[in-house]
Amino acid sequence: MDDVERLELQVIGLVRSPLHDPADAPRQGDEGAPRARLVLDPEVWPGLDGLRVGAEILVLTWLHRARRDVLRTRPRNDPGRQEQGVFTTRSPDRPNPLGLHRVRVIAFDGNAVEVDGLEAVDGTPVVDLKPVLGPVDER
Amino acid sequence: MDDVERLELQVIGLVRSPLHDPADAPRQGDEGAPRARLVLDPEVWPGLDGLRVGAEILVLTWLHRARRDVLRTRPRNDPGRQEQGVFTTRSPDRPNPLGLHRVRVIAFDGNAVEVDGLEAVDGTPVVDLKPVLGPVDER
Repeated sequence: MDDVERLELQVIGLVRSPLHDPADAPRQGDEGAPRARLVLDPEVWPGLDGLRVGAEILVLTWLHRARRDVLRTRPRNDPGRQEQGVFTTRSPDRPNPLGLHRVRVIAFDGNAVEVDGLEAVDGTPVVDLKPVLGPVDER
Repeated sequence: MDDVERLELQVIGLVRSPLHDPADAPRQGDEGAPRARLVLDPEVWPGLDGLRVGAEILVLTWLHRARRDVLRTRPRNDPGRQEQGVFTTRSPDRPNPLGLHRVRVIAFDGNAVEVDGLEAVDGTPVVDLKPVLGPVDER
């Protein structure tokens, strides 16, 4: 796989959240995660054109506190269970610690997009936003 | 945003597909995309432990033929429409060309995972696999 160029992500923004410790972060956004602000680099603002309050979006993040050398893990909520491969879990620990968060836009605030229920800690880099597609994401 | 370390993705595998030209690729996996094989680096195989035929998974790819300097685009199927921000579209052209594909595992074949309906071209780098979570991804 050496013929592939370097895949370097551009940080397009940062999560600002009252969550500071990964241990406090809910496992998923529907498990009581707080509101958060996505403070986006002014350079990428044109990419937001057409985004509306109320829209459901997918936020892709780089879970910078995760471990990249882990391939097998135990569910955090059930440590007695057998280890399983990280690709069968949503654990942040994995070769590429990409977070995928489904949230709703609740406001625009200066250079930030305010969203509900984001389970990433303060300072987490944002790398992409995508619209939720009904037929693809909800089938 | 200069205090963030380099975010470099590890290629964990490559898509093998009869699709070769991005222009032939359906826009989404449910629009007639073919079966494809995810040929994974043996180094990451332990991460697959527990993955079963029939499982619905999310495949994250690096859409290596996309343009990273595009922030506004027109829908490909409706070029007469107004431009919109790339973050409100699933266009591959965006600052970080991450592809998100929901597919079903149909077989394991040596070092490859065979999946249905993947709309990425042959040679596309794979960077992560995640299980579909009902309450989060389908709400």
